[in-house]
Amino acid sequence: MSEIEQIYTALTSFRDQRNWKQFHNAKDLALALSIEAAELNELFLWKSKDEINNVDAEKVGEELADILAFAFLIAEKYNFDIKEIMLNKIQKNAIKYPVEKSKDKADKYTDL
Amino acid sequence: MSEIEQIYTALTSFRDQRNWKQFHNAKDLALALSIEAAELNELFLWKSKDEINNVDAEKVGEELADILAFAFLIAEKYNFDIKEIMLNKIQKNAIKYPVEKSKDKADKYTDL
Amino acid sequence: MSEIEQIYTALTSFRDQRNWKQFHNAKDLALALSIEAAELNELFLWKSKDEINNVDAEKVGEELADILAFAFLIAEKYNFDIKEIMLNKIQKNAIKYPVEKSKDKADKYTDL
Amino acid sequence: MSEIEQIYTALTSFRDQRNWKQFHNAKDLALALSIEAAELNELFLWKSKDEINNVDAEKVGEELADILAFAFLIAEKYNFDIKEIMLNKIQKNAIKYPVEKSKDKADKYTDL
Repeated sequence: MSEIEQIYTALTSFRDQRNWKQFHNAKDLALALSIEAAELNELFLWKSKDEINNVDAEKVGEELADILAFAFLIAEKYNFDIKEIMLNKIQKNAIKYPVEKSKDKADKYTDL
Repeated sequence: MSEIEQIYTALTSFRDQRNWKQFHNAKDLALALSIEAAELNELFLWKSKDEINNVDAEKVGEELADILAFAFLIAEKYNFDIKEIMLNKIQKNAIKYPVEKSKDKADKYTDL
Repeated sequence: MSEIEQIYTALTSFRDQRNWKQFHNAKDLALALSIEAAELNELFLWKSKDEINNVDAEKVGEELADILAFAFLIAEKYNFDIKEIMLNKIQKNAIKYPVEKSKDKADKYTDL
Repeated sequence: MSEIEQIYTALTSFRDQRNWKQFHNAKDLALALSIEAAELNELFLWKSKDEINNVDAEKVGEELADILAFAFLIAEKYNFDIKEIMLNKIQKNAIKYPVEKSKDKADKYTDL
């Protein structure tokens, strides 16, 4: 079983033991993901460039894991293959951000 | 190479060709993730339960891929093992949400 | 003193007693606002159309007040007149969303 | 008519001309607000402390106005008095953040 399959097994087993699929429509899963994203951001709030390095890595890992969990549950809902959608999007972004135009620049593609 | 390793290879190659690591501090990566999460949420905005099913799955996949990309880049920055942090957090959540108390309930653990 | 001026007086007095202006750069104020927005959203998470009506109005008011506080602090930082920027944006949105095209529709202006 | 009343008049007139009240349940209004908050945050993404000062103030004002618009529409929905909920919350926060403990510190009240 691949690592991604192992993650899915743990996630869906956690969910199904609690019978939570009934709550997991795509809109609320996406909302839950963005709430977890805010909790991750809160770890860095008001922190200067140097202070960011002192943020507790364990807490970062926990908030990130919650975000990933909802991302995987959305992927499962849509029968997405995680690797496939990511590689496809990276290819698409490579066209939006050509190396020669975007190198060393943090501009949005609409401003390149 | 595992699927997760293949994703990392594509992601970091995309990033390094553009020399973007200089912008990728943890605080801005987390902020970027939450902005992508908002773009995913926007697909469902104002939509009723039935209308959610008509949302373009391809667009959902693309926004989800952007979220996952930033999640993986944060994991890479902290040298996290994606599977490990996810399985650990699922275990922790299993304690916060005991089956007997949380079954069929969408309440936050603080309200159980 | 107008109501808006009274709000500013209370807000800046709260801030200055704690000497917090040093932390209040525009980027972190905007981040703080979005974290408070997530806390408001959390009150409605997993809730159906009917259940939304049972959400504690007092809690909604408190989260909304935190959002407004950061919005006012950003406005103060930029010397914006709240009424002026809002009326200007409503005018601009009226052009993006002409009545005849947008009536009874929740579509984004780019999809009208 | 107070400034806040003038804002409400412009906002509800904009909304009612388009017959949009039908879409404005509290959950989607809160979601819309957080999406606008992400658009404000995007203006500052990847920007260093110095670069923040070069962000276009007009754009900041427009995104902030959109956030405020949804905040006012939520307040209207709940019949909140903007000044009242803000002054009440400032008082509550003053207790959570006593001056002597929180002066010159950006810590969350749970960490003071």
